[in-house]
Amino acid sequence: MKKESIHIVKIGSAIVDENDVLEEFLSDFTALESPKILIHGGGKSASKLAKELNIPVKMHKGRRITCNKTLDVITMTYAGKINKNLVAKLQLFGCNALGLSGADGDVIRAKKRSPNPIDFGHVGDVTSVNANLIATLLNAGIIPVFCAMTHDMNGNLLNTNADTIASEIAIALSSDFETKLYYAFDQPGVMRDLNDKTSLINEITSDSYEELKNKRVISDGMIPKLDNCMHALDHGVEKIYIGDQKLLKPNSKSFTLIH
Amino acid sequence: MKKESIHIVKIGSAIVDENDVLEEFLSDFTALESPKILIHGGGKSASKLAKELNIPVKMHKGRRITCNKTLDVITMTYAGKINKNLVAKLQLFGCNALGLSGADGDVIRAKKRSPNPIDFGHVGDVTSVNANLIATLLNAGIIPVFCAMTHDMNGNLLNTNADTIASEIAIALSSDFETKLYYAFDQPGVMRDLNDKTSLINEITSDSYEELKNKRVISDGMIPKLDNCMHALDHGVEKIYIGDQKLLKPNSKSFTLIH
Repeated sequence: MKKESIHIVKIGSAIVDENDVLEEFLSDFTALESPKILIHGGGKSASKLAKELNIPVKMHKGRRITCNKTLDVITMTYAGKINKNLVAKLQLFGCNALGLSGADGDVIRAKKRSPNPIDFGHVGDVTSVNANLIATLLNAGIIPVFCAMTHDMNGNLLNTNADTIASEIAIALSSDFETKLYYAFDQPGVMRDLNDKTSLINEITSDSYEELKNKRVISDGMIPKLDNCMHALDHGVEKIYIGDQKLLKPNSKSFTLIH
Repeated sequence: MKKESIHIVKIGSAIVDENDVLEEFLSDFTALESPKILIHGGGKSASKLAKELNIPVKMHKGRRITCNKTLDVITMTYAGKINKNLVAKLQLFGCNALGLSGADGDVIRAKKRSPNPIDFGHVGDVTSVNANLIATLLNAGIIPVFCAMTHDMNGNLLNTNADTIASEIAIALSSDFETKLYYAFDQPGVMRDLNDKTSLINEITSDSYEELKNKRVISDGMIPKLDNCMHALDHGVEKIYIGDQKLLKPNSKSFTLIH
């Protein structure tokens, strides 16, 4: 029997932090046929709040080092301000959204990352996703909206990469659904040359990805993102779409399809 | 047929802001027989964050005036920091908590309060509670944890009194459950004299409440709290318990029972 499709959509700061862009994107998201799930980051907003509170922002290769105070900033920004405003806006569009961190309903557990070789602080790597709870919510007509936070079952919240949360949710749902994973960010897709808008790579497969990596066609920053996609494909995810704010438009042709 | 009991417990800043007190309270909460619901405030933490961000805290008769920036502070503190830390701690105790604002799953709608005679800003009065969603979560073994926020279905979050949220949830569940409502705050119950710990009033009924009010035995600050309780009793709530951090201890005798 053909499995039902599910759309799992991750949005980054390029969309979350621009109100007009965000509202149009949420309207496109609402128009997708159910079931669907939204996952959001919000690193720029978190850094802005940290600055206002005189908390130093420390990064290592683009990943945030999360001290105690930074964890509070992350929790306030991701699980509070961004998540609840997204949910309220989706309700306005008629999409019955419900916001979650990984601690809520024990839906995403993670393990605190080892402090060696780099101590990232309160950062966790996903160990399990509670697909049953997600299915219960979907069956009740609820659209889950995840912020990029998990927990360790020892009472601690952990900051977790939103791209990874999206792919782990997609993997966990792949046994019951035909999973389509979308990453919307600030580029029209994976580019051969970031300065040339015509250099979009329309399609990547695991074979072509190895070649693109070997030939150094893909920039360093995209490699963790694409490795994460390859991991998702290897674990049951059907198709992955990478693109910009127009990614969910019905006739969009500007994206990279990874399959 | 006798209806199943449900415990609906509201905690204020006196418990939320003191970590040791909070953990013991959450442990007592976890020990209550299911089903149950937690509602929290957190005004002190919100005022602390506002101060750190140089946002003026404006109150009118103990109620917060919620400007745009204050709404962000409230959202970050209530729905973010406090709610998610409560949920993570409850998970540690083995209580499968899931945090909600009123926007999540459209669970609590409110109407922005009229700016006359006092403009409270983004403050809402509850208009409906989605008891079906709460029942779906309870049936899935989930313990809902509500912060004191609602939404208006026009995309806006609203700051809403936590005592009222607790009583409105209790009222909405009264047709399906025998509802027991608990208010835990910084006093052992309703006192005849705040400076005399032996002046606890053990029991209040609607008749005795009128008498206590007429004789001015109850202090002004308690009147909105108790009016709210009387409203809940009039609309199907079975019993209300007001007490301090020990309110949920199995053998606690120090509380005011309102019935």
